[in-house]
Amino acid sequence: MPHRYFTTEISNGTATLRGADAHHLSRVMRGKLGDTVILCDGNAVEYTATITGFGPETVEFSVEPGYPSAAEPSVEVTLFVGYPKQDKLEQVIRHGVELGCTHFVPFFSRYCVAAPKKEEQKNERYNRIAFEAAKQCGRGVLPDVALPLPNFGALCRSLEGYDLVLFCYELGGAPLRQLLADAKPADGQRLKIALITGAEGGFAAEEAEMAANAGVKTVGLGPRILRCETAPLAVLSAVMTLTGNLE
Amino acid sequence: MPHRYFTTEISNGTATLRGADAHHLSRVMRGKLGDTVILCDGNAVEYTATITGFGPETVEFSVEPGYPSAAEPSVEVTLFVGYPKQDKLEQVIRHGVELGCTHFVPFFSRYCVAAPKKEEQKNERYNRIAFEAAKQCGRGVLPDVALPLPNFGALCRSLEGYDLVLFCYELGGAPLRQLLADAKPADGQRLKIALITGAEGGFAAEEAEMAANAGVKTVGLGPRILRCETAPLAVLSAVMTLTGNLE
Repeated sequence: MPHRYFTTEISNGTATLRGADAHHLSRVMRGKLGDTVILCDGNAVEYTATITGFGPETVEFSVEPGYPSAAEPSVEVTLFVGYPKQDKLEQVIRHGVELGCTHFVPFFSRYCVAAPKKEEQKNERYNRIAFEAAKQCGRGVLPDVALPLPNFGALCRSLEGYDLVLFCYELGGAPLRQLLADAKPADGQRLKIALITGAEGGFAAEEAEMAANAGVKTVGLGPRILRCETAPLAVLSAVMTLTGNLE
Repeated sequence: MPHRYFTTEISNGTATLRGADAHHLSRVMRGKLGDTVILCDGNAVEYTATITGFGPETVEFSVEPGYPSAAEPSVEVTLFVGYPKQDKLEQVIRHGVELGCTHFVPFFSRYCVAAPKKEEQKNERYNRIAFEAAKQCGRGVLPDVALPLPNFGALCRSLEGYDLVLFCYELGGAPLRQLLADAKPADGQRLKIALITGAEGGFAAEEAEMAANAGVKTVGLGPRILRCETAPLAVLSAVMTLTGNLE
């Protein structure tokens, strides 16, 4: 399988790769004139590209007409993830990207054990992890990680524009397949789904009430208690399975 | 929610807890006469139990009639997991137990990067991790971890007695929902499913051929390339979703 790189510099049948990726292709992979790679514009369009030249820090290509990336799911998922302890958020981002999640929004909530600390620096790191995961697993877009929301109220005010908002609550709720079957996307659009999962401490009763008032659907993930780093991956896998995006 | 403990010493309306769990209940939780806990026999039967006495290293209970554990899925899943590097096998076991897996069988294969080393010692640790995860997530049975199989041939000779054996192959296969819909359990039994996922290096072509000759069904997990620690959790979540065990 040819290597894949993201670049936005694709136009008129040519393309350019810069920076670390250009270095990787020319020095590490020892790419040669005439070699073929896949370029992705980060907007779900991919191109078969042939190396036509090397600059000091660039690689130049001629590209064939683009085609839609096969790896993008038919649903656009945003994961609102309760900020967990240690490096668990990195795990959730890494594996979530593989499972087709497009946007990550960490949030703090009443029972969070983690507290905000150097979040701008950490956010750079989280986005780098998402980028690397997207390259490795073959995504057609670059998933992004937002700066964390300060509390659950801020989360509830961020839920506009989704076709379905699912609140994964430890006390249970409706089956996911029923909620998904009832959801309809806007005309000609992908179904936009928001998933909300909690941190180690779970949700306070008043947070569950705030979520209900914000119009979310409460979903149950079965009788076993899932850890805060397992629940996002389980519900992402379930959503992708039920929408035909894990087959 | 009352605390839960596993014990096999339950008979004639009484029960005994020993060792670390007895210490935990009497010293850490400061249990008192008349307090109620849930005891589970590790065989998917649970009991509401009332503390009737404390010995030097035991706790004694009177128990009400048992009832089936609500947390056990309706399918019995064995995960054959390619032996990964670092501590990834521990992650797979921990999260796999939460997702309802009952048996774990690590195996070495052609492209495994990990090599066997002190496996008996490690196996004790893996079983302890499974035990702790089972307690924490509320399982009704104690999932077990086998000693690793030395190669893929040994795996192919271990596939008797399952209603469905699914080989998760990076080159794709049939959709999981179709394969599951076609599977039927033996009369009055739970559906017994074996899942096979690879290590970092994936499978060699001749291993895929051996699997096919052993009668497995090859299943695809979508167009994104899943890491070796993500694939088991994705396919477990998918199986549990499609069999109604993640709702």
